[in-house]
Amino acid sequence: MKGLALGVDLGGTNARAAVVDRATGEIVASHKEPLRERGPEAVVATVLHALGQAAGAAGIAPASAGRVGVGVAGQVLGATGVVMNAPNLGWRDVAFGTLLEKALGVPVRVANDLSVAAWGEKRFGAARGIEDVVLVFVGSGVGSGLILGGRLHDGAQGVAGELGHIKVRLPRPGFTPRRCGCGQLGCLEAYTSGVNVAARVREEIAAGAATRVLELVEGDLARVTASVVEEAHALGDAYAVALWDEVAELLGLSVANLVTLLNPARLILGGGVLLGAPRLADLTLRRFDEAVSRSATRGLTVERAWLGDDAGVIGAAVLE
Amino acid sequence: MKGLALGVDLGGTNARAAVVDRATGEIVASHKEPLRERGPEAVVATVLHALGQAAGAAGIAPASAGRVGVGVAGQVLGATGVVMNAPNLGWRDVAFGTLLEKALGVPVRVANDLSVAAWGEKRFGAARGIEDVVLVFVGSGVGSGLILGGRLHDGAQGVAGELGHIKVRLPRPGFTPRRCGCGQLGCLEAYTSGVNVAARVREEIAAGAATRVLELVEGDLARVTASVVEEAHALGDAYAVALWDEVAELLGLSVANLVTLLNPARLILGGGVLLGAPRLADLTLRRFDEAVSRSATRGLTVERAWLGDDAGVIGAAVLE
Repeated sequence: MKGLALGVDLGGTNARAAVVDRATGEIVASHKEPLRERGPEAVVATVLHALGQAAGAAGIAPASAGRVGVGVAGQVLGATGVVMNAPNLGWRDVAFGTLLEKALGVPVRVANDLSVAAWGEKRFGAARGIEDVVLVFVGSGVGSGLILGGRLHDGAQGVAGELGHIKVRLPRPGFTPRRCGCGQLGCLEAYTSGVNVAARVREEIAAGAATRVLELVEGDLARVTASVVEEAHALGDAYAVALWDEVAELLGLSVANLVTLLNPARLILGGGVLLGAPRLADLTLRRFDEAVSRSATRGLTVERAWLGDDAGVIGAAVLE
Repeated sequence: MKGLALGVDLGGTNARAAVVDRATGEIVASHKEPLRERGPEAVVATVLHALGQAAGAAGIAPASAGRVGVGVAGQVLGATGVVMNAPNLGWRDVAFGTLLEKALGVPVRVANDLSVAAWGEKRFGAARGIEDVVLVFVGSGVGSGLILGGRLHDGAQGVAGELGHIKVRLPRPGFTPRRCGCGQLGCLEAYTSGVNVAARVREEIAAGAATRVLELVEGDLARVTASVVEEAHALGDAYAVALWDEVAELLGLSVANLVTLLNPARLILGGGVLLGAPRLADLTLRRFDEAVSRSATRGLTVERAWLGDDAGVIGAAVLE
């Protein structure tokens, strides 16, 4: 029992629980449960059920693993377990850690999903044995997880690493930057996440932009994704070329500035957009190389994430 | 003896050594010695002399304090004591820590001057008892010092916190960003440090810009400084207003993004430009407020640096 730990990855549509071998990071058993309702009590019940199923499959009681770690797609006030803002769950200031702790009867540690993923990669993935690690994630959202001096850095309130919410466009007379899901204007995420790129392409096509994206989705705008823009880019479509140039510049510059500020030994790239759109990833790395401070790149290595969708549950299980 | 520590602040023109009370941070004795030559051996001799004078004034032997900490205005490879790049000293890859250690006979710890200043403020100044602290310095140069999780974060190579070298302008067809002292283009420092602001104003006046700066310096361009621009701003000079708007936007946005990424509990502002030009500082804080992620500002407090020019020697003396 001592060698096993329980972790939960709580997204917007599923709760996934896993029993993880503390020594190897191997997933011994796991269970994914859809979130039918999003009220905090309902989610606690779903998480309990998923934990029970995963633990049962591994032949242990959920409470026997001592402490449960949870990664949540949202802003988490680290020490308190309060989920400040989780747009996909529709939560604001939910004391999720306390609720789950009461229901489960063991201590619960809650952290942001990317912090947890970075910790998983540091313990068992693309950053094993490395003390200073930045994980950058570009998928449906944009964010980062920071391991500094061998420890998870989640900040004074637990919201460090919010790369998606640094500002990359400022309001000007006659220009209003795109609005982000967080409510603010001009965030990196508003310009570069999969969801926001797709929304922008739909808007621009609706407004008359000429692009082969439209024929690739056979006129069905609901099918527009970052992958389709990548396909259009491969066909030399001028609209896709210009869009990827802009997205790559914003991502490359932002990640370069993050590396210049933190001087990590390893940069890990993850998320469906970065890993699934090689042309965009290549352009982004070129912009990164141009913009990063040369002193911060001595000894820096760049790797793709190893653990994929498992990073969250693994990292959560072995959170410190 | 056990209660005293020795620190050195090594700038481009002086070496200042101080004997510091470990418990209170009080400077018991100090000595400032001009750097007559800048070769590494000559600087080691000057530092030794300054240490000897300061220690003598406090009635101790320099080697009796156990370990000596040194803050250097430049990029330092933390653990090794190698000064990678110190433009004011003209050094590249100088093994200063080892040289001083041999000469002194006690262990030496070398770090960047702003890292050391942040550590001083954390121990005895504007961030006492706070675990996550960002110190931003805008003076002749621009930089930051990072205290994360109660420890100095100087990064994998010791060059973390290089706020002055994040990129704020990118090359475009027909536009080349200003070149920074580090050799790269478009760094924050190239647009906002005292030295660079003054250089730009001189260039623009020489190129015909109309501004009351010229009458304030009585036609003597050598006397142009950020303070003079601040004076012109107070007179409503249109050139100064536009320049401060640009500088404040770049500084405010960059510091906001740093805070969004790291979620410190305290932001400390220091350096002659920020502290000596209240109109610029005020504009900068307004831009900061607009751009920072709201989640990162819960519980954030902003303070001016307390220790001023003493932060370096004090922080160096008590480096961990």
